[in-house]
Amino acid sequence: MTKSDILHNDLESKSILKVGGAFDAMSAKLVEINGFDAVWAGGFAISATHALPDASILTMTEFLNVASNMEEASNIPIIADCDTGFGGPSNVSHMVKKYEKAGIAAVCIEDKTFPKQNSFLENSKQELLSEKDFVAKIIAARDAKENPNFTIIARTEALISGMGMKEAIKRALAYEKAGADAILIHSKQDSPSEIFEFSESWGGTLPLVVVPTSYPTVKLDELISHNIKMIIYANQALRVAHASISKVLKQLKNSSSISDISEDLSSMQEIFQLQETYNIKKQEEEIEKDLKKMGYIN
Amino acid sequence: MTKSDILHNDLESKSILKVGGAFDAMSAKLVEINGFDAVWAGGFAISATHALPDASILTMTEFLNVASNMEEASNIPIIADCDTGFGGPSNVSHMVKKYEKAGIAAVCIEDKTFPKQNSFLENSKQELLSEKDFVAKIIAARDAKENPNFTIIARTEALISGMGMKEAIKRALAYEKAGADAILIHSKQDSPSEIFEFSESWGGTLPLVVVPTSYPTVKLDELISHNIKMIIYANQALRVAHASISKVLKQLKNSSSISDISEDLSSMQEIFQLQETYNIKKQEEEIEKDLKKMGYIN
Amino acid sequence: MTKSDILHNDLESKSILKVGGAFDAMSAKLVEINGFDAVWAGGFAISATHALPDASILTMTEFLNVASNMEEASNIPIIADCDTGFGGPSNVSHMVKKYEKAGIAAVCIEDKTFPKQNSFLENSKQELLSEKDFVAKIIAARDAKENPNFTIIARTEALISGMGMKEAIKRALAYEKAGADAILIHSKQDSPSEIFEFSESWGGTLPLVVVPTSYPTVKLDELISHNIKMIIYANQALRVAHASISKVLKQLKNSSSISDISEDLSSMQEIFQLQETYNIKKQEEEIEKDLKKMGYIN
Amino acid sequence: MTKSDILHNDLESKSILKVGGAFDAMSAKLVEINGFDAVWAGGFAISATHALPDASILTMTEFLNVASNMEEASNIPIIADCDTGFGGPSNVSHMVKKYEKAGIAAVCIEDKTFPKQNSFLENSKQELLSEKDFVAKIIAARDAKENPNFTIIARTEALISGMGMKEAIKRALAYEKAGADAILIHSKQDSPSEIFEFSESWGGTLPLVVVPTSYPTVKLDELISHNIKMIIYANQALRVAHASISKVLKQLKNSSSISDISEDLSSMQEIFQLQETYNIKKQEEEIEKDLKKMGYIN
Repeated sequence: MTKSDILHNDLESKSILKVGGAFDAMSAKLVEINGFDAVWAGGFAISATHALPDASILTMTEFLNVASNMEEASNIPIIADCDTGFGGPSNVSHMVKKYEKAGIAAVCIEDKTFPKQNSFLENSKQELLSEKDFVAKIIAARDAKENPNFTIIARTEALISGMGMKEAIKRALAYEKAGADAILIHSKQDSPSEIFEFSESWGGTLPLVVVPTSYPTVKLDELISHNIKMIIYANQALRVAHASISKVLKQLKNSSSISDISEDLSSMQEIFQLQETYNIKKQEEEIEKDLKKMGYIN
Repeated sequence: MTKSDILHNDLESKSILKVGGAFDAMSAKLVEINGFDAVWAGGFAISATHALPDASILTMTEFLNVASNMEEASNIPIIADCDTGFGGPSNVSHMVKKYEKAGIAAVCIEDKTFPKQNSFLENSKQELLSEKDFVAKIIAARDAKENPNFTIIARTEALISGMGMKEAIKRALAYEKAGADAILIHSKQDSPSEIFEFSESWGGTLPLVVVPTSYPTVKLDELISHNIKMIIYANQALRVAHASISKVLKQLKNSSSISDISEDLSSMQEIFQLQETYNIKKQEEEIEKDLKKMGYIN
Repeated sequence: MTKSDILHNDLESKSILKVGGAFDAMSAKLVEINGFDAVWAGGFAISATHALPDASILTMTEFLNVASNMEEASNIPIIADCDTGFGGPSNVSHMVKKYEKAGIAAVCIEDKTFPKQNSFLENSKQELLSEKDFVAKIIAARDAKENPNFTIIARTEALISGMGMKEAIKRALAYEKAGADAILIHSKQDSPSEIFEFSESWGGTLPLVVVPTSYPTVKLDELISHNIKMIIYANQALRVAHASISKVLKQLKNSSSISDISEDLSSMQEIFQLQETYNIKKQEEEIEKDLKKMGYIN
Repeated sequence: MTKSDILHNDLESKSILKVGGAFDAMSAKLVEINGFDAVWAGGFAISATHALPDASILTMTEFLNVASNMEEASNIPIIADCDTGFGGPSNVSHMVKKYEKAGIAAVCIEDKTFPKQNSFLENSKQELLSEKDFVAKIIAARDAKENPNFTIIARTEALISGMGMKEAIKRALAYEKAGADAILIHSKQDSPSEIFEFSESWGGTLPLVVVPTSYPTVKLDELISHNIKMIIYANQALRVAHASISKVLKQLKNSSSISDISEDLSSMQEIFQLQETYNIKKQEEEIEKDLKKMGYIN
């Protein structure tokens, strides 16, 4: 069973999937260790760790490289945020082949124009691609995948861009018809009301996905009762890392000795564990056993 | 003035350089923002964020890629931890050319055998390369650099490997003679006494560098008074990130809503700042001014 | 003097520059060895060696990687074909910084819409970006470069797209005004007449660049007398490699022994020379001399 | 059926496999088009196209990148030349996981010390790793593979290094016992006699592989009758490319017009075919059909 199959099955069987946002292999592994269903390889967070704007600056190669590292490090499905799909339908087709080959379980593409701007950026342009042109991308993605369980998440920014509920619903239905496997309905309101209005009235059959960055008080049962099947905690790990690194560096700069700092640090041992450093030792011991059997060592 | 020149001058003019360990471009930029003199692109921390052991598993390409991203994101010198130099003298020569071209200010190579193990790993093999073979690597590095101010840090693991003070001194002097620009004297004792013994008795003229991970109580003035010219805070940023990400993910997994979590998160605005997201807006405005002058827009 | 400076000076002092198209570091080095003034890192040829269409499928990362390898291998300037600039003005700005840092002497961007199609593809769409939007990209490129001698080549596809001479001239003048350093005027006619008409009537002052793939009978003095300053032999090296590899593989497949094949093969020695394999030996000998002086070997 | 399975089955069912050496995706595709059984992603040829010595200078990342591009471009198995395995047993383990994930069908590792030198380089050091240490690498490779049909080729350089037939046989048997799936017996003599002596007397059961660069007159039936199961044409495609590119560049440099050159060039159309450029058109037409059905276009 591939990770695409696992994610597909989970979407069918679980009441809601909790997906933790990560930005490198270590954070992806911590998402797994803490019991999430999948990892969100988010464009905003990955751009941030590259100290570059979330504005289609990093290339597909760079995003895929991070997602692929995550995939190799963790045992749960990786869902890759693929921005606007890195171009037109032929780029989307190429992209799906590359991501599926890398073992990624799902890709998410959004209906903004390329190059995009982050959805939460104030006074930013949030232009949408025409429905037709985005439908063409979904068709391209659908035709490119090999495993039918590889999940294509179509993300509509209709609410973000101010085009309204009717447009959001029209687009979501069109994306379902075109072959998407899930709909991410995005909002930047500080309450989940428009998300709930959407979920109650859209009328489609695909699982719905939300990213409640701007309405963090929404409760899990509310989401479940409004038929949301996946919640993505997109950037909390990034933001706590940014905050804690800032604090420890400030203290180190101003302290006379390292032991003065008050932040909680994981021990070297804990990092060694995460790196599976001891597997090398174990592996060496197994090789030594074989070498003994073969007479090379006593 | 290149960043190599800046680091070289700082080593001559400052009483001690404080170098913050980073593992990606964001943490490197935070090191800069918090007033450190340079960034340590550490092999242990970079391996950890790739969820791989610090055992020569990542390739030079992968390490250089991270260091290069750091260099593009920050305005202070980057010091790259280059493990054992990724092979023999010809690999070291190739490495120095690649790193210098990428704008890295300094490289550090250590006198362990390849593939290496982390110096703080218990019961690990810490074999040293012969002095002759490591001297050959330093000569190769020295001959490969273009800017004489590009800094080659020779790190001796003689104390870590249990070969004793006399060996450490003998090697450090040999590395100085071979063309190194600084000596990193490493220790895993929980007090700085062997480091101080070394600095008092070795007799060389090169600046000394320390990484007090295992003796964190040592004070800055003690280091200065013992003639240490650079302190590297190699892994505190990594360890606080690991700890804080773990905490926030645990809380997210067990909470009913995001707003329940108690950890301090940086705001989206703070991340946007770090990414220089607003530079794009500023850039767009400047282009618009030009387009107006040229009559394309009113 | 950087390679940007060399190219800039050559454009001022030479009657015409001959630029050889390459697709990897070996072909780039052969371009240098055969006396060309610069290397063209062409998008079509590089896409071909990746067995992918020349349709904006390869990412900037992949193109830059090849151009950077070429730069490290050769001593003459590299001119990088950068397609449509990999997005909008902010992508172009990022691109120029990356390419200039990598030591590339010039970039060429074209005024087609993204994703593009190859100019010689029959029945292909060759839509142009609006003049305003391409001017914005040139402004972004101009503002991003550090060395004023880094050359920005603006390539207009107005003749290819069927928009006519008047449009081509209007655009070329606008691109000059916006800050381009050279104009590549492209044609797919089988005679140079429209190129010559352009060069005689456009009225700008920038050096003109041509790629006579479709009008290969044009003579060098004709180009010089029509004020063309650079000729790019974009794809002949690629096409002869494709032809010769095909022939030798066909023969190998059908022969009883390798010695039956009739194609001329370079010797292993010739390849070793190109790789500068003997530099390693030389380097080792120099290191040995130093080791002798230092008393490590007798 | 994976490509590992295909190669494994071919090794069981065919009298001999013809494997064509390639160095990029285009040459790999030409190997496929010309009817070979598999592609050899050779370290010497790939190093040459990077204009770098075949001396462990390119990293695993760079070699894997090329092999992976080949894999995506062609439908036949890729056999990757992995040098000495890029380090010790833990590096080999990591390598096998990465290559198998990338869809590579087989890896070949050789029993020289790291960093290595090319086997055909005159007066070069050709030191062998101890049998024990190389056996440890094979065990690591064997334990790391997931698909039992993923092929591990153990290459012994015992004859190249002058250690003699007895040592070659001893090592080949040890490598078989340790878990290799095939033995590459390498020779730099100008006749196949020592290869034949080996194949007749070694006594193992694994398929034997040869690279007759230095004994090119050997005939296919001779190899078959001496029980050789795979012949690798490692570098002929590279050498003909080097020769033909050199010729065409020389002519271009010295000619007045492109049409003066006498070398056979493939047409642009032939390159477009290889790139599958027309697939994009076909894909666009299929998307258009769907868009029509959905009512977006008439």
